[in-house]
Formats: sequence, structure tokens, C-alpha cells
Amino acid sequence: MSETDSGFIAALEEATQGAAEGGVPIGACLVSKDGKIIGRGHNMRVQNGSATLHAEISALENSGRLPASAYAGSTMYTTLSPCDMCTGACILYKVSRVVIGEHKNFVGGEEYLKQRGVEVVVLESEECKRLMARFIKEKPCVWNEDIGEE
Amino acid sequence: MSETDSGFIAALEEATQGAAEGGVPIGACLVSKDGKIIGRGHNMRVQNGSATLHAEISALENSGRLPASAYAGSTMYTTLSPCDMCTGACILYKVSRVVIGEHKNFVGGEEYLKQRGVEVVVLESEECKRLMARFIKEKPCVWNEDIGEE
Repeated sequence: MSETDSGFIAALEEATQGAAEGGVPIGACLVSKDGKIIGRGHNMRVQNGSATLHAEISALENSGRLPASAYAGSTMYTTLSPCDMCTGACILYKVSRVVIGEHKNFVGGEEYLKQRGVEVVVLESEECKRLMARFIKEKPCVWNEDIGEE
Repeated sequence: MSETDSGFIAALEEATQGAAEGGVPIGACLVSKDGKIIGRGHNMRVQNGSATLHAEISALENSGRLPASAYAGSTMYTTLSPCDMCTGACILYKVSRVVIGEHKNFVGGEEYLKQRGVEVVVLESEECKRLMARFIKEKPCVWNEDIGEE
């Protein structure tokens, strides 16, 4: 797993697109076990007034209705450590691996994913770190709202 | 907490509405600490082709963008034990209590909710049990898809 994976590149493109839209700059991409992109998306809090369309939820939603077999062996690429909701979504659908761009700006459910048998890889992407750090500095209230913090 | 709570009645109305629409008959309702309904919704897998709009996610989505303070002391009523995704969503937003209609047909993240400090109440509603049992019998494939099972 590396920053040159097509799934990671797609997730980062989604995050960049979210930033361009004035939104929370987090992107995600779900890739099947045979390497095909199933769905991709980005955080839509600002754009849609959405409390639930975090990047990973958007990617799952954009993947459409699928049988359990479609998620077997799949990888969720996300530019930031997944929150508890997105962690739970990956567990629900038995995503096999979660590849995280960075976990410097936020640490979500990584340990719980491991406890539930999901492989976790952190890429320590400098670009992901810069994107998030800038957003958190510029719009701390939106960021706190997104992670349910005061 | 009882079956006469307005939040539970709203959740059951949502589940019944979902059933009438031919969908997965699960409803939810988020109630603030002062007893006001913040948002309500039902599972939209069939109606919207949605992989993520479980009842609790719908209720949170229909509640709109809110600051963390709006969720403090809140109660999520749901007609069925919440899956891992919906469990995580309640943890993310620090919902204080989850009131569950029934957990005979499915047991989700109840123990994890408790571990994370969320109060869990199960009402053992016969009406909720009947609604789910009938759906699972009539449409087992849709149900399995909804919980990520083969």
C-alpha cells in the first residue's frame, strides 16, 4: 500500500475537490479485492448540509446497493483516520483493509478496526496533513461540528 | 423509557412508513435532552438504493448540521438494535442514550455502546419484533444486504 495506489490517488482527488468546494477536505475511495474502484466520495457537510456524509460514508453511498460478497477483500482508502461512524461502516460491510492518508490531525477508530479484524495501514501523507491542518486552522468551528466536539 | 415515549412512537411510525414503502422496516428518532424531536427517519435502502441510510443515519441526516451541544443528553430511539455503523454514529455525536425497540431479530453494537459510555435500554416491543420478523421472512436477500451478510 502506498501513495501511488490508484485508490489513494482517487481519495486524495476527492479531498482536493472537497477543499475546492469550500468543504471539509476529506476524501475516500472503496476498491474491490481485484483492484477496481467501487465508489468514491468526499465529505459533504458544507456542500449538502449533511451530518452523515463523511468521506467514507459518501464512498459507500456512491458505491450503491451491493451484496456482501462485493465488499469481501475490499480496501477503503481515506485521507484521514476514520471517525467512529465511518469505522463502524467499514466493520458493518466487512471491508478488509483501511488505508489512511494521515492520523496526525485526528485519530479515529484505528484500534477498534484492528480489534474487529480489519487491517489498518497509515501512509503518513504530507499532502493529506497539509490539507487538513489548513482547514482546521481556517474553519475550526466546522471541523469541531464534523467530529462532534465543542 | 417506555413504548409510550413520543420518540419511540415516532420511530415506530417511521418503521411502519418504511414497511408501507416496501422498504426495510426500521425507524429511528433523535430526541433532545429537553424532550424535543430533533430529527426522525427510516431505512432507505430500497427506496433510494442507499447503502448508508439506515434508520439512525436517516434520523441524524434529517436532523441537519448541528453543533456538538445539540446532541448532549440526547436519546436515539430505534426500532431495532443498531448495526456497527449506526452504533458508531451515535458514539461520534455523543448521543447519551440509545433506546432500542427490540433485539430478537438482530443484535448490533449494544455492548460497544455501553463500553463507550452510552446508556442502552431495550424495550422488547412485540410490534417491532413482528415488523422485522415478517420482513426478514419475506425478503431475506434484502435484509442480508442491509447487514452485510451473505
